Amino acid sequence: MAFRFEIIQTDNFSQGRVGRVETDHGSFATPAFLPVGTQGSVKSLTPEELMEIGVEAILGNTYHLYLRPGHEVIRKLGGLHHFIHWDRPILTDSGGFQIFSLGSLRKITEEGAAFQSHLDGSSHFLTPEKVMEIQIALGSDIAMVLDECVPYPSSYEYVNISMERTSRWAKRCLETKRENGPALFAIVQGGIYRDLRKKSAQTLVEMGFQGYAIGGLSVGEPKSSMQDVLEWTIPFLPISTPRYLMGIGTPEDILYAVMNGVDLFDCVLPTRNARNGTLFTSFGKISIKQAQYAEDGRPLDETCICYTCRNYSRAYLRHLYLSKEILSSRLNTIHNLYYYINLLIKIREAIKAGRFLEFYHSQTFQDGALRNSDTHLQSEGQ
Amino acid sequence: MAFRFEIIQTDNFSQGRVGRVETDHGSFATPAFLPVGTQGSVKSLTPEELMEIGVEAILGNTYHLYLRPGHEVIRKLGGLHHFIHWDRPILTDSGGFQIFSLGSLRKITEEGAAFQSHLDGSSHFLTPEKVMEIQIALGSDIAMVLDECVPYPSSYEYVNISMERTSRWAKRCLETKRENGPALFAIVQGGIYRDLRKKSAQTLVEMGFQGYAIGGLSVGEPKSSMQDVLEWTIPFLPISTPRYLMGIGTPEDILYAVMNGVDLFDCVLPTRNARNGTLFTSFGKISIKQAQYAEDGRPLDETCICYTCRNYSRAYLRHLYLSKEILSSRLNTIHNLYYYINLLIKIREAIKAGRFLEFYHSQTFQDGALRNSDTHLQSEGQ
Repeated sequence: MAFRFEIIQTDNFSQGRVGRVETDHGSFATPAFLPVGTQGSVKSLTPEELMEIGVEAILGNTYHLYLRPGHEVIRKLGGLHHFIHWDRPILTDSGGFQIFSLGSLRKITEEGAAFQSHLDGSSHFLTPEKVMEIQIALGSDIAMVLDECVPYPSSYEYVNISMERTSRWAKRCLETKRENGPALFAIVQGGIYRDLRKKSAQTLVEMGFQGYAIGGLSVGEPKSSMQDVLEWTIPFLPISTPRYLMGIGTPEDILYAVMNGVDLFDCVLPTRNARNGTLFTSFGKISIKQAQYAEDGRPLDETCICYTCRNYSRAYLRHLYLSKEILSSRLNTIHNLYYYINLLIKIREAIKAGRFLEFYHSQTFQDGALRNSDTHLQSEGQ
Repeated sequence: MAFRFEIIQTDNFSQGRVGRVETDHGSFATPAFLPVGTQGSVKSLTPEELMEIGVEAILGNTYHLYLRPGHEVIRKLGGLHHFIHWDRPILTDSGGFQIFSLGSLRKITEEGAAFQSHLDGSSHFLTPEKVMEIQIALGSDIAMVLDECVPYPSSYEYVNISMERTSRWAKRCLETKRENGPALFAIVQGGIYRDLRKKSAQTLVEMGFQGYAIGGLSVGEPKSSMQDVLEWTIPFLPISTPRYLMGIGTPEDILYAVMNGVDLFDCVLPTRNARNGTLFTSFGKISIKQAQYAEDGRPLDETCICYTCRNYSRAYLRHLYLSKEILSSRLNTIHNLYYYINLLIKIREAIKAGRFLEFYHSQTFQDGALRNSDTHLQSEGQ
């Protein structure tokens, strides 16, 4: 399958860059945020709604789709795109993070990962070769190598052993890669150890992948560790391939990572928050269930032009949330995803206009996290 | 508010008729099926989706909206149409049926109905005047009188007392009616007693309402009772006003009732069934969770052109249902409502074309209920 990454413009004052990823299912602009469609559905939305929001690519979870309905079923039915009625790019993860999340239900050996299904307790064994087979069956546009995601904290010794094994698994995935199959991205591991991150990156880059992800973050480490890992890793990744920060993150995280040269993001935050009634707005994060919105006839965010803000009041959104109406999840998800997609649009425009740092500094978020990390960044001489 | 009912065509061989109801929020064709938007949302769908399906009018539940978010809040925010972003006709029930459903939590007196909220146990007292005030505040197009819905079975003595009180309540509602308020429909009660149904109908018709509903059905009585009640009641209702069979029913029920001259229907069946994975198709009712659909790439109903059938396979619908995805409720609801709306379209076309009985006989449903009731109907000389 065709895969191409083109850098269109690089920021003069940071490592931010604007680019475009091309696949057989069309292209998408980077930096990009990919909503998560775990079980073959970006929760609560149709593909048409995703397109109206401006979503250009989504993520599917190999672990979940392998267990249910099964990759062979999806292959027989014409592949994941056809199955879920989404004809634009799909990136599939490898299941490494989900298997990690199973805790004591998994066992890692050199050969692969043994685990018990979270659905029915049945036993499974995934190898690097098997996850490639699954992702090929799904018809993914971008596949990820199988990796071991280690918990935080983990000892240097264990992270070292694990990272080396993840590199050997990456090699096995690469050897299984097919010309007419998905593009293949490797995953840098190494926990919060600088030299291990460097070694992981160097080893993988030497093998030659079509993109590189930074994995093993958002597993309980402090926020500053995420920032450290980005700074330790990215210098060892090629300029010319996409860099993907897996499972991250908040708007602040995304801004910070873009400044450091990251091109791809995925995260359940906007969609999960939406279902919990937590909404991103131009004036900060809000909880729609608060009593102050009970008779508030204004749109959620008066600066927003998403379907939700164009047609419904805060009072109605609060009512739907309190009434546990399905429409609550839908309207909130539309808004939060629009917020994220629009943030990425503004980021790309700022980079193109040569004013990304200005944009970065203009963004303020309710919890102040951005301003702190900001100071940190500056002290690192970016 | 304007309200007009026009009969466009009457069937030669049954009491079926095609008409049109006009309100300040536009008109709708009859016989009509109104989806239920209990809490200000037809569960899982947006107003745009309802319109795409062909829905022309919906029902709102006074009881639920009174309790949450409160009719005064809705009034302040511009009325129910604006609040829920639906600018077409809305019929509101009076809460009688919901209060009945509370069982021991309610107490009926001459003055009105005392009950405890199903939400928080708080005490409330609804009178005929109060339910009018609420429905006026909501800005409903068609309001219903407060009625007492008696359980099945109930003694002749109690049903008689209750029916007489319901008539007095109807009178009080009529006295509260405003020129610029909603149209007002009365509700015929009388349980399964022929003379009480007749008396109820005659008393209410004498008062002069803009429409008449047949209430107190679908409360546990046998199907034949519903059919009896229709036949006992409708001859005493005016030809020129709409007849509304509340809370009914299955496709078979609707066909039967249309044949007997009913114009309006509402029921949670298509929407609730959808969420439970039970789908109406041209080949009968099916349960989408069945294993036989696991690898079935065909649309749910190959003769259907709804959004769901145009874009998704049975296998995907089954997968979404088993995965408890919100999209499952959405796609199933779209299909089931489309089935109902389309059934009503076919009914109207059949009446207009002078072949309603032919159409009636051509309809077969999986459980055979229609064929049985059919026999019964014929023996009554229709």
